[in-house]
Amino acid sequence: MNNFNDLQKLVENQINTLNFDLEPDNLYKPIEYSLSSGGKRIRPVLALMAYELYRYDVEEAVKPATGLEVFHNFTLLHDDIMDKSDMRRGKPSVHKKYNLDIALLSGDAMSILATSLINQAPRNQQKIMQAFTRAALDVCEGQQYDMDFESREFISEDDYLKMISLKTSALLAVSLKTGGLMADAPYQDIDALYKMGLSLGLGFQLQDDWLDCFGNQAKFGKPIGKDILNQKKTLLWIEAHEKAEETDKKRMQNIIKDTSLNNEKKVDTVLGIYNKLGIPEQTRNTISSCFDEAESYLSKLSVADTKKTILRDFIRYIKNRTY
Amino acid sequence: MNNFNDLQKLVENQINTLNFDLEPDNLYKPIEYSLSSGGKRIRPVLALMAYELYRYDVEEAVKPATGLEVFHNFTLLHDDIMDKSDMRRGKPSVHKKYNLDIALLSGDAMSILATSLINQAPRNQQKIMQAFTRAALDVCEGQQYDMDFESREFISEDDYLKMISLKTSALLAVSLKTGGLMADAPYQDIDALYKMGLSLGLGFQLQDDWLDCFGNQAKFGKPIGKDILNQKKTLLWIEAHEKAEETDKKRMQNIIKDTSLNNEKKVDTVLGIYNKLGIPEQTRNTISSCFDEAESYLSKLSVADTKKTILRDFIRYIKNRTY
Repeated sequence: MNNFNDLQKLVENQINTLNFDLEPDNLYKPIEYSLSSGGKRIRPVLALMAYELYRYDVEEAVKPATGLEVFHNFTLLHDDIMDKSDMRRGKPSVHKKYNLDIALLSGDAMSILATSLINQAPRNQQKIMQAFTRAALDVCEGQQYDMDFESREFISEDDYLKMISLKTSALLAVSLKTGGLMADAPYQDIDALYKMGLSLGLGFQLQDDWLDCFGNQAKFGKPIGKDILNQKKTLLWIEAHEKAEETDKKRMQNIIKDTSLNNEKKVDTVLGIYNKLGIPEQTRNTISSCFDEAESYLSKLSVADTKKTILRDFIRYIKNRTY
Repeated sequence: MNNFNDLQKLVENQINTLNFDLEPDNLYKPIEYSLSSGGKRIRPVLALMAYELYRYDVEEAVKPATGLEVFHNFTLLHDDIMDKSDMRRGKPSVHKKYNLDIALLSGDAMSILATSLINQAPRNQQKIMQAFTRAALDVCEGQQYDMDFESREFISEDDYLKMISLKTSALLAVSLKTGGLMADAPYQDIDALYKMGLSLGLGFQLQDDWLDCFGNQAKFGKPIGKDILNQKKTLLWIEAHEKAEETDKKRMQNIIKDTSLNNEKKVDTVLGIYNKLGIPEQTRNTISSCFDEAESYLSKLSVADTKKTILRDFIRYIKNRTY
């Protein structure tokens, strides 16, 4: 069985064999640019880890698994347009480097390319396509909720968790499911793999939100408190806002407009409220239980426990990441 | 066997049973809006006509065929963003009625929804998905060429024909092919159906360009000469520009900037040059040979000639349309 790095390398090689030396340049070069800008390739690696629980011929699964990465990068490309994000992984985003029309159309082509790769699954191709298109629609729903929430003053914990389940967890879940389906795993295992992915995705996103507040800035690679400054209503914000006394509540609501404070001071003030209310610990507990749940689904799989080590290590690695 | 109107009704009913009463509204209402704004449903009808050459259980094929219509409407939705078209079929385009972000994301969801419907093909599902994704990429390539051509001063006849082959013919061709594959038609028939679609698509688009210049304005539903005013280098423009003497050539190149003329006069001048050079006849001949070619592929199909009547009538109907 291959470890994370081995599988990542298989995906990387597969991406490099996709030929983007095609005409018209303005359609294919942005796709190449988008796919070459790194990322951990988590989704295809998860698919391949699931596949290797049941079969040894992992090379059969690399191309369709890579389709999941292409789809993920397509969503980032279009999200950057909608979120007006000019940078992605330290480089100009596609719509900045090229233009909006080119980013829109090359994104469309990436979504189709992803479908075409996933369609090359060695087994259960129709079921995989059904699961994939469902998850892909989930991702769209999640992105639309995320945009809708921007203009709503308050959202509930449940609203937030539903949104990130759709936007982030669905694709991770279907990646594990696709790996299981490609290997023709038993029905109960397919179900457990999907649910494992949902829990893992939730933990992953909440971890991301936590690190945005309490991570090591140098390691995390993003400025601390970006979500606070963007008035993003993450779980931390929602829980703090619920628990806070009236004065702190008002402070949280109005701090961004407070021209007497610089950004650092604004972030410090909100983090101070979070700390006072025990939000960091509360969130860490929620995150832990997501990862514990993911592990509990892993233990349900019908394969020998020794085969599960790589996936278990991966779940713990994600849980313990500090950036 | 069902005629055009019967098949169109089947598709219309299928569209009406798709449930868009889903959350979030801002994702699904624009899809409903886009699909409800009419259109002749040519692509799914062609798929069903091809299917009925070989099988009697057409209802098996309606859902996947409708996927082709959903995909077509997705391309219109995103094209309208890129082309900055504010109207579509007499109503505000999606990005005007809603906004750019909503149009972008609901378009993405339509492309996925199309895939999910096509995936429900009763036979040869993997082959159909492979052919569909190839054609879908062709459509993207065609749209990118179309945008690239806008900033190029001259393009050749071959460039133009290649562009419309990709942008328009590929999806019509794959619609016929999908019908054949769903019915498990013989390999040679599948190939002939695809080629028939390419010829039909070419004829259809050239006809559209011709009608833009010489159609009956009231019936065509669009102002005559729109392509001329938009400086679109159609086959008529390219051929006229090749044949014209130096003074007419200059006139064609500079007429849009000529502030002494109103739009009607500009169109009249260019049409005058077209007429002088025999361009209308030349283009009509090209169009005729496209439709003749489509009919020649129809005659190659392995089924009884009586079964071909509906498709033959359809080709002639498209050929003779005046709007």
